[in-house]
Amino acid sequence: MTYSLVPVAVVRSSLTDRHEAPMQGYEGAPDAWLDVQDAVVDAMDDIAVGDELILITWFHEAQRDVLKVHPRSDPRHPLTGVFSTRSPDRPNPLGLHRVRVLAIDRPRIQVGPLEAIDGTPVVDIKPVLSRTEDA
Amino acid sequence: MTYSLVPVAVVRSSLTDRHEAPMQGYEGAPDAWLDVQDAVVDAMDDIAVGDELILITWFHEAQRDVLKVHPRSDPRHPLTGVFSTRSPDRPNPLGLHRVRVLAIDRPRIQVGPLEAIDGTPVVDIKPVLSRTEDA
Repeated sequence: MTYSLVPVAVVRSSLTDRHEAPMQGYEGAPDAWLDVQDAVVDAMDDIAVGDELILITWFHEAQRDVLKVHPRSDPRHPLTGVFSTRSPDRPNPLGLHRVRVLAIDRPRIQVGPLEAIDGTPVVDIKPVLSRTEDA
Repeated sequence: MTYSLVPVAVVRSSLTDRHEAPMQGYEGAPDAWLDVQDAVVDAMDDIAVGDELILITWFHEAQRDVLKVHPRSDPRHPLTGVFSTRSPDRPNPLGLHRVRVLAIDRPRIQVGPLEAIDGTPVVDIKPVLSRTEDA
């Protein structure tokens, strides 16, 4: 049994190399634009400047057969199961990113900070829930 | 371009009807077990009781052609783009759930609270990042 994801947007960023990108948005990542796909653009109609969003991305350059990694790619850290890490290398290479909306130019949304590289597919966009301030 | 998700675990819960499930975990959802798939079980080796995790699920009963909904299924709420809601009906019906680990019986993990119904596929498991306490 498998499920098929379709991109709902694509990241447009000055970051182009996975190995030069910050590991998390709060580690100095730049702002970026999301190009929302025409087929789903109506789903963005209620997003407003200032909103906090959770983006779910697909790390298209990840390795999917990796089950343990050295966290933060540092060999001094012991091998750790990927379900206890944020490694992009994992069975389903989904990324989670909390960002703020900076500008809207339908069908584009400017958000930041975002460590995903240029061309990264976005597969979902959700509001942060104020009840928990998390996902 | 599409991407193929494989389940990494399946939810075992007393909740069996989507329409009777709480909308969020903190709205009275029960604890549940995750049956981790044999092929990826090594990826759970560093999960410990007490950990806070983000589960990403696949709402297998969702409608994928819905772009606007009445939030919380209440017709008094105006139609809202799904990227501003947590509706399971959306182009890629991914769910985000913040849970705590209650017990481990490899390859099973007990977590709670969790509003996902019995049989829901889990497509990723990630640690909550202490830096942001969110996704």
